[in-house]
Amino acid sequence: MVSPSTVRVLVDMDGVLADFETSLYKNYRSRYPDEPSIEPNDRRGFLAGDQYAGIRPDLRPKIASIYETPGFFLNLEPIPGAIEAINEMSNLKNTDVFICTSPLMKYEHCVQEKYEWVEKHLGPEFVRRLILTSDKTVVWGDLLIDDKDCITGVEPNPSWEHILFTCCHNTHLDPRPPRRRLQSWADDWRSIVDSKRKT
Amino acid sequence: MVSPSTVRVLVDMDGVLADFETSLYKNYRSRYPDEPSIEPNDRRGFLAGDQYAGIRPDLRPKIASIYETPGFFLNLEPIPGAIEAINEMSNLKNTDVFICTSPLMKYEHCVQEKYEWVEKHLGPEFVRRLILTSDKTVVWGDLLIDDKDCITGVEPNPSWEHILFTCCHNTHLDPRPPRRRLQSWADDWRSIVDSKRKT
Repeated sequence: MVSPSTVRVLVDMDGVLADFETSLYKNYRSRYPDEPSIEPNDRRGFLAGDQYAGIRPDLRPKIASIYETPGFFLNLEPIPGAIEAINEMSNLKNTDVFICTSPLMKYEHCVQEKYEWVEKHLGPEFVRRLILTSDKTVVWGDLLIDDKDCITGVEPNPSWEHILFTCCHNTHLDPRPPRRRLQSWADDWRSIVDSKRKT
Repeated sequence: MVSPSTVRVLVDMDGVLADFETSLYKNYRSRYPDEPSIEPNDRRGFLAGDQYAGIRPDLRPKIASIYETPGFFLNLEPIPGAIEAINEMSNLKNTDVFICTSPLMKYEHCVQEKYEWVEKHLGPEFVRRLILTSDKTVVWGDLLIDDKDCITGVEPNPSWEHILFTCCHNTHLDPRPPRRRLQSWADDWRSIVDSKRKT
């Protein structure tokens, strides 16, 4: 669907490039040391707030207060190997890479800091490759590498194949065939990209 | 290309929904009353900086300083009829509307304020319909209503038809057939949307 010779890869940010879950846990433990917490290995489901609310309803605003804090998004550590992989991928011939990320509905700090994070870790030129959208189904690509298990929007037949990037909250999910996973950036992302090339 | 029954309309922000050029002129005149200025009716070319630099090179940073000022994007007035048209369009059956806008490379203030502007003028739910991207060719729609005369990116054959929205800086351009224009929000945008419906 995309131009025949080029593979266009859309890469999600939180959980794929930026380690949202580790910072969330650490900052929550530090701010609320006496409250129950969920270690990353025990996280289930995309939204941490839903799982925390299952323990006690008042924990939902507490966990939200962590990722709504100024500096939270800017200070996320890169996922191991992510920066190297993205740089290598974007230098591949006939390969266009875009970062495709959905901001929080409470967009204060989050949107600005996502731009700052990309500039800090990937350089100012990569800022041009950043797409902010709540609906990823209307972005036109061959692959979407994303840790969210179910990606929906107005377009019922997105152009991309969704590659589930393994993250603590989705490890338990059975990736129904033919859905493919990328277990980490040490996994063979090059083959997945190449599988979309037209010969 | 988009789902048969639904028309997807991408609407640019600056110059189409938000009156960038009028605020730019007024604020520049107010800050630099003794410098030469270009009235909106005399603007030519998409980038004001290029035209100002043609008068005197040091006017380029001066005009840039206006749109880089905090509050500039948030305080833009809506283009006449824009808010009513967008609300009406998004309430049409089988019609999806997204706002598709490219932030400044100096993204401080600009990205945050674009979100605030949409919330202020169209409401919090419309924030979910905001797409920030430097490359609009990878957004998948039927129509792109945009005042920029030439829209390029990695995709040589975008999915959308570009409708040139008339703005002071592009009035002199000859819209080569079959390119269509929308002269203003009082013009017949409904027919343009309907022209994309599959019968």
